[in-house]
Amino acid sequence: MRQTTRIIRVETGGRGFYDVTATLADFLRGARMGEGLLTVFCRHTSASLLIQENADPSVLRDLESVFSRLAPEGAAYAHDTEGPDDMPAHIRAALTQTQLSIPVIGGALALGTWQGVYLFEHRRRPHRREIALHLMGE
Amino acid sequence: MRQTTRIIRVETGGRGFYDVTATLADFLRGARMGEGLLTVFCRHTSASLLIQENADPSVLRDLESVFSRLAPEGAAYAHDTEGPDDMPAHIRAALTQTQLSIPVIGGALALGTWQGVYLFEHRRRPHRREIALHLMGE
Amino acid sequence: MRQTTRIIRVETGGRGFYDVTATLADFLRGARMGEGLLTVFCRHTSASLLIQENADPSVLRDLESVFSRLAPEGAAYAHDTEGPDDMPAHIRAALTQTQLSIPVIGGALALGTWQGVYLFEHRRRPHRREIALHLMGE
Repeated sequence: MRQTTRIIRVETGGRGFYDVTATLADFLRGARMGEGLLTVFCRHTSASLLIQENADPSVLRDLESVFSRLAPEGAAYAHDTEGPDDMPAHIRAALTQTQLSIPVIGGALALGTWQGVYLFEHRRRPHRREIALHLMGE
Repeated sequence: MRQTTRIIRVETGGRGFYDVTATLADFLRGARMGEGLLTVFCRHTSASLLIQENADPSVLRDLESVFSRLAPEGAAYAHDTEGPDDMPAHIRAALTQTQLSIPVIGGALALGTWQGVYLFEHRRRPHRREIALHLMGE
Repeated sequence: MRQTTRIIRVETGGRGFYDVTATLADFLRGARMGEGLLTVFCRHTSASLLIQENADPSVLRDLESVFSRLAPEGAAYAHDTEGPDDMPAHIRAALTQTQLSIPVIGGALALGTWQGVYLFEHRRRPHRREIALHLMGE
């Protein structure tokens, strides 16, 4: 049994979903691990992680609309000094995931056929986001 | 330290909560592990996982109502080709969990007394769902 | 590779956020582990976990308002025998996290600068809450 860690960076171009599945698969391949557990951790509170359908892009567009409705800009937030999209970003992050762990079976991530792993950027402006990876197994 | 993995299948009979706690406990018992970490991963984006109260079934009924309200059928979704319950299913999955990790202490899952682990089926029709399990410890 | 577990207790004084980040860091320090994975598991269904901003307390106040709106007291819940705040507590727990896993890199939790780990108490009365910790690494 052994482990390896890494910090990866994702440059986001504003609100939306950024597919990191291939980056995770590359990290796993480089570690040459057949069975184990990969943990993906978003180091931010105004961006988050989500596993969602990778087939029809309209799913992601609908999700974006839903979260815009659940966390509207322009509501009367006490926290309003970092821009109208900042408190909604915290709410969207709270309702999704900061961390995901994915089993590794037969040398591959045990994702379903239609599952992609996304960094979910909640701020309107581009950001450099950091994701911590931890892989343990053999 | 050692690890073991398995893919289990759950036949769902439509929208609702399916208790998998006993299945997880069986898997742990078979692995004869005293201390470790069990990871449960749902390989779908229209079903998810949730730990909730296992005592009063009305809690689960109320949760079902809440998620039906948060992700209504009949809203104007762009993704509508897979039936009126499909996009709501993705939203419900996004708001709950794709993955859960539960510590193993003293040979048992460290769940609280009133906690059950549920597969949360979001589609109206029956589905065969796959859950990947990863257990690590000694 | 080795592992260690512990059950910690948090006395809550009613609904709100209780910062457990320092407790987690103490646990890690005591284990003298340089690289690994810390799993934090809330053993309740009317309290949960959340990683959120630790800088401006108004973020947490706004989050409290948002969850009060998403899970209102006084709605017509089937589960109403444990008080008007109990079913809302289950809903709030379902929408946030029961479990978080945080990579350990360079002997420290790989949290971002502005991330704090909070026990999110959803009940109005004080409670004694239990959190199971599992740390694995070397």
